[in-house]
Amino acid sequence: MTSNINIAIDVMGNDKGPEVIIEASSISKTRYPDIKYTYFGDRKLISKYLKKYRNLIGSYQIMHTEEQVLPEDKPTLALRKRKSSSMGRALAYLKDKKVEALVSAGNTGALMAMAKLELRMLEGILRPAIAATFPHKKGEFVMLDLGANTECSHEHLVQFAIMGSEFAKVVLGKEEPKLAILNIGTEADKGKVYINETAKNLKESYLSKNFIGYIEGNDITSGLADVVVSDGFSGNIALKTAEGVATLCSNYIKNIFQSSFLGKVSFILLSKKLRALKDKLDPRKRNGALFLGLNGIVVKSHGGADALGFASAIDIAYEFADEDIAKKIIGNISKQNI
Amino acid sequence: MTSNINIAIDVMGNDKGPEVIIEASSISKTRYPDIKYTYFGDRKLISKYLKKYRNLIGSYQIMHTEEQVLPEDKPTLALRKRKSSSMGRALAYLKDKKVEALVSAGNTGALMAMAKLELRMLEGILRPAIAATFPHKKGEFVMLDLGANTECSHEHLVQFAIMGSEFAKVVLGKEEPKLAILNIGTEADKGKVYINETAKNLKESYLSKNFIGYIEGNDITSGLADVVVSDGFSGNIALKTAEGVATLCSNYIKNIFQSSFLGKVSFILLSKKLRALKDKLDPRKRNGALFLGLNGIVVKSHGGADALGFASAIDIAYEFADEDIAKKIIGNISKQNI
Repeated sequence: MTSNINIAIDVMGNDKGPEVIIEASSISKTRYPDIKYTYFGDRKLISKYLKKYRNLIGSYQIMHTEEQVLPEDKPTLALRKRKSSSMGRALAYLKDKKVEALVSAGNTGALMAMAKLELRMLEGILRPAIAATFPHKKGEFVMLDLGANTECSHEHLVQFAIMGSEFAKVVLGKEEPKLAILNIGTEADKGKVYINETAKNLKESYLSKNFIGYIEGNDITSGLADVVVSDGFSGNIALKTAEGVATLCSNYIKNIFQSSFLGKVSFILLSKKLRALKDKLDPRKRNGALFLGLNGIVVKSHGGADALGFASAIDIAYEFADEDIAKKIIGNISKQNI
Repeated sequence: MTSNINIAIDVMGNDKGPEVIIEASSISKTRYPDIKYTYFGDRKLISKYLKKYRNLIGSYQIMHTEEQVLPEDKPTLALRKRKSSSMGRALAYLKDKKVEALVSAGNTGALMAMAKLELRMLEGILRPAIAATFPHKKGEFVMLDLGANTECSHEHLVQFAIMGSEFAKVVLGKEEPKLAILNIGTEADKGKVYINETAKNLKESYLSKNFIGYIEGNDITSGLADVVVSDGFSGNIALKTAEGVATLCSNYIKNIFQSSFLGKVSFILLSKKLRALKDKLDPRKRNGALFLGLNGIVVKSHGGADALGFASAIDIAYEFADEDIAKKIIGNISKQNI
């Protein structure tokens, strides 16, 4: 595939500093040799680290910024840094279509607030949502919202269902992704009122044929649904709990293989398969969430991601830069029946 | 330990039928030879299955009931079956102190509604909560509420913190259990308003010295907190998601060892350690949640638990039957500063 995809990189947002981000962009460059970057941040620092990665030569520009949004900045404070920070200037570039997508590991609340203001929401969308893919027994599924909206109404959730379904078509390649709502039981009146309302609305919408009802936490990994919709609070709790348990499992497995001679022998015998398992359980390999519902592709990386993690967020930005799911979302939002 | 502990068993509540429950009581009897049972359910069925388990001879009585609470019964319908169902009659026995504790695998909502009505809440308690222990990196932690209260206020959460801390003292043996609130960030104003209010209240309460603030889903398994407090909706989502991911990990590991000759050889080399890991990841081994805040020990088993799972719920009932955490909870509720 040859393209002209230029990705804006907010170099200043990562907990581990700019070097990790430059290294990440070099890793993604080996996967997508035609990728171009526009780095936003401290020119001196960026130039210094760029020297280490020769495969990046000739495929980037640097936009110097003096300010940065800090992890502890409230969205209101961050908005004041909109014109001058690495995050804000990168978003302005995206708005002006000078880049095809943006990746940041910065403050999620600030990035969302700024992105809403700068890019504006797609026509008809009430609130953007954060979406990502996760492994289940038979492959992968899409989950949203993962933390943009702490409180939601059924109108929001119906829109998340529409956006998530379009996202799943692209990312999972399924034409009719099965859709479920995260809940604490499967009977019609279980859980919260706005969840029951969402179910009613979806049953009457064009999505009804793909809507399988409520799904409980233990079934999101069993492969029943391709798209799991929830409010941002519950979605974030589910996502992070899953991450924590996966890490715990990794540790248990590591201990088994490291704590004895027989374990070490078995490790050698099985090393290839164990590496594949480690990849499956490694949250870094799945890093990168898409902001859905905006006029532009914004990918949020974990603040604590290392180079491998941030590279996976860049990969997502690259893969979505060519897709026009925005149009499909706008088309389907107008079809909704709420 | 010799005692006179008699456990009421609701034989009719399990998805897998009464036999599994009788088998479970036989398993627990091997662990606690002095345990006594009072079975509530269909006498014919119970007698039939009891014949298979000779270690139960002489240590039980049967209370015949005609009716049972069905999984799909709404709490209001269930309450009408209070006098006649296996669940309702077992609760009446517990109320009258003819038994020391009760175990049921029946409909959670119905069990909670009936238990509230029959046993009444401890003095000062606004709402009971469902609590259980889970593994983390360094041992175990207590989590509550796991589904009794979909909507909560900060008053409820402060009480859950008090009850959970007392529960942790007994079950984890820690004198000063570290306490955290489940949230989607660690800054003071993150998440929902009632969560922020709870944090403020706890900082001003007698629990302040043990209160470590908010905890995110990925850190509940990292061993930072001994008690994690949340509303019943989020708690249930976290619990079940953790269960799902643990099952997924088990499947991955099983595949590694079963899919090749080298895998099978390694499995033999490591079988003892792998069995221990399987136990850690097996939700059946951790089955059984305690209803906290009631005048009586009620343990809820998973509806789908097998004999091993239901036996673990009986074990919990037995272990708590001797503890008088109710008095400590009442004492601390009066100390609270909300």
